[in-house]
Amino acid sequence: MASELRIIPLRGLPEFREGDDVAEAIVKAAGAEPEIRDGDVLVVTQKIVSKSEGRVVQLDSVTPSPEAERLAQETEKDPRLVELILQESSGIVRQRGPVLITETRHGFVCANAGIDASNVGPEGTVCLLPVDPDASADRICAGIRKATGGNVAVIISDTFGRAWREGHTNVAVGVAGMLPFADYVGQVDPFGYELRVSTLCIADELAGAAELVQNKLDGVPVAIIRGFDYPRGEGSARHIVRPKENDLFR
Amino acid sequence: MASELRIIPLRGLPEFREGDDVAEAIVKAAGAEPEIRDGDVLVVTQKIVSKSEGRVVQLDSVTPSPEAERLAQETEKDPRLVELILQESSGIVRQRGPVLITETRHGFVCANAGIDASNVGPEGTVCLLPVDPDASADRICAGIRKATGGNVAVIISDTFGRAWREGHTNVAVGVAGMLPFADYVGQVDPFGYELRVSTLCIADELAGAAELVQNKLDGVPVAIIRGFDYPRGEGSARHIVRPKENDLFR
Repeated sequence: MASELRIIPLRGLPEFREGDDVAEAIVKAAGAEPEIRDGDVLVVTQKIVSKSEGRVVQLDSVTPSPEAERLAQETEKDPRLVELILQESSGIVRQRGPVLITETRHGFVCANAGIDASNVGPEGTVCLLPVDPDASADRICAGIRKATGGNVAVIISDTFGRAWREGHTNVAVGVAGMLPFADYVGQVDPFGYELRVSTLCIADELAGAAELVQNKLDGVPVAIIRGFDYPRGEGSARHIVRPKENDLFR
Repeated sequence: MASELRIIPLRGLPEFREGDDVAEAIVKAAGAEPEIRDGDVLVVTQKIVSKSEGRVVQLDSVTPSPEAERLAQETEKDPRLVELILQESSGIVRQRGPVLITETRHGFVCANAGIDASNVGPEGTVCLLPVDPDASADRICAGIRKATGGNVAVIISDTFGRAWREGHTNVAVGVAGMLPFADYVGQVDPFGYELRVSTLCIADELAGAAELVQNKLDGVPVAIIRGFDYPRGEGSARHIVRPKENDLFR
């Protein structure tokens, strides 16, 4: 039976640079209180992971292709940014006015291939998604286990828009130490009726829950979710990506 | 600065029937512990609201139209259920095999107009969304203020699928006592960069967070979220609906 959850903002993390050890920094910032405990879910925003992995690009270093030049004119974006978006994408899903929604090489559908210029550095600096966010989550998981002896789940989160509904929400782009879904397939309700909605994407719900304490301007890139009995297993955010052939909106 | 959040499942609620007072039942179940407090966010699943408002239908009472009969054959659904789906919808967004995604009269895009047969009653009984979930949230808000003297925010939640990503998540279909968005428009990060992602749909993030303690089989239809400094104001879930003319996926 589910008990109370706590969503704890982790304060005192440093600015991250390429080569920094995110797991070590998290364990240090958590200290003796709130302390990382066995069974915690750590939700880590993509940006600090990308920075620690050197996924920061100076636009000055980018030479746009003719295709990027053309698309930049249509979308009124910097051609160098559009070049990076195209490099990070396997395809364009929608384009209208300044809106450019692509499918990233991981399969995520989002604006501008998830490339972001906020909280990165001086103008002309942008941040790409990690190359393999599941592997990033795995490394953080392993680092925390090594430092604390505890098993935790790690979710790498990013802020995406969605179809039909206004506003963005935080979702999972990397998962380790847990399954991303809670599955009720074949289970029956108290009336004997088999449940229609059988699969909840708890990884996305955890990412969104963490965002509530990660206020963008406060700079709280990590939240600890304590008290959630998550399904153990080898999870992957790639399982959240709906295969294109089953998707009615691509 | 955001502090720790608590997500508290509210136990001891009764089965709801038409005419039952949801606010009164919530205050009673909360009792002296956890007690409803000023500033709490209450996330209430749609089903108990619909039941208390008499939005439960016996399929035996429904006569399908010829259009419903045709669509039922294509989707292999009960024609009486399809009749209700069409009555509750302003249009069909996608149809393939058994999948029927419509736009409800409120503007929500979801499967089967949000009509659900689980946790409702014996076979042949289905539950429709509230006619006006914002008004339902308002009534619960007012009832709790009357009983406790405290101001709370109320979110009516339901479980929806989404484009591009597998699994369902809980989202807000009704909002009262708060604004559904946290807005960073025009605010700048520590590097002086104006934030790109400027609007977070916190109402959906709160609905999803609550789901984590509302495990479908445990029957916990209400969760209290405590410690969240939500934006006060006259909110509405209708503001979350993206106007059709701005939507690239309808």
